[in-house]
Amino acid sequence: MRPQDIEKRSFAIITAELGERTFPDGESEVVKRVIHTTADFDYADSLAFSPGAVGQAREALASGATVVTDTNMALAGVNKGALQALGGRAVCYMADGAVARAAGARGVTRAAVSMEYAALLDGPLIFAVGNAPTALIRLHELIAEGAVSPALVIGVPVGFVNVVEAKELFIGGQTPYIIARGRKGGSNVAAAIVNALLYQLIEREGF
Amino acid sequence: MRPQDIEKRSFAIITAELGERTFPDGESEVVKRVIHTTADFDYADSLAFSPGAVGQAREALASGATVVTDTNMALAGVNKGALQALGGRAVCYMADGAVARAAGARGVTRAAVSMEYAALLDGPLIFAVGNAPTALIRLHELIAEGAVSPALVIGVPVGFVNVVEAKELFIGGQTPYIIARGRKGGSNVAAAIVNALLYQLIEREGF
Repeated sequence: MRPQDIEKRSFAIITAELGERTFPDGESEVVKRVIHTTADFDYADSLAFSPGAVGQAREALASGATVVTDTNMALAGVNKGALQALGGRAVCYMADGAVARAAGARGVTRAAVSMEYAALLDGPLIFAVGNAPTALIRLHELIAEGAVSPALVIGVPVGFVNVVEAKELFIGGQTPYIIARGRKGGSNVAAAIVNALLYQLIEREGF
Repeated sequence: MRPQDIEKRSFAIITAELGERTFPDGESEVVKRVIHTTADFDYADSLAFSPGAVGQAREALASGATVVTDTNMALAGVNKGALQALGGRAVCYMADGAVARAAGARGVTRAAVSMEYAALLDGPLIFAVGNAPTALIRLHELIAEGAVSPALVIGVPVGFVNVVEAKELFIGGQTPYIIARGRKGGSNVAAAIVNALLYQLIEREGF
């Protein structure tokens, strides 16, 4: 079987196993790609979308958005070819020496400082946070201060300490979001959500 | 809370929630780190270890093993600092131009060809397959042909087509293995297992 046939068959299995469950247009592809990446159907219940988030994200990506990740692993998982074809790019400042020094000097996490650096970037910004709750908390503060206005926040860190609370900060707020409520998530989930948005843009709008 | 305190607290929560469940020495750290990476307790049941696999892996890593991954995402997730401190390295041939050309010419996956390339490497080899069942199947063939004798196969691809079967090929076999039975797994799980082995070597044996 060719890779594209395996993917098609996988999505057919996921759709069949979701049974009666339906999702709004656009959100469906995101939910299914996350399940495809994790084989974990819990995401059918835990993924929360702000109204219109997927459409807003597609618009940002179509106009050449910068995707900001909080791990190099998520950065590695984003389909850079698809992103570049749309005039976008992906960045991660976690391995940046200046970020590490600033974090050490201030006694905060590199992830938090990396969000401050990213907030200074021009153009539409999509934040894809799959690891560090401190990144999500700092991002929430930066938004509240008016320092950044993300086109989308993908908030899917995984973990047992401060993770659930950091994700809940965004629920019901004004910033467009896709949040995996609860403990689960990860860099792979963050990348899968970015890719799901990219692929539906490419498939539907012929980019 | 400092990152190391968050990790300690997370592992305490995982240990508490595992309750009465116990695991052999060495395997316990692997199981807990995978749960730490995924927040998914299913791995307490699905991870299968060949007898002595963890000890054999620690020995290989202590003598400067090469870790071969089937995705750049898993490669990004492996703690290269810890690996290099032990004289090891991590490689992934998925983005190699020659691999892509050979795969295209032969009508097989790049993942399968990347295993053939890796099989030619010297020194102890740890294969960490978190994505492609075809990598695992080709690796199984190469072992049967005597072309490679891995110190450990971490077989944790995720998915819905051919994945369960590819992983089962190794269960009960002669090659040391850590396999996530069933559909679940991923590049993040593959990297977490490598890191769990690295950290226990560093903590216990003072590397």
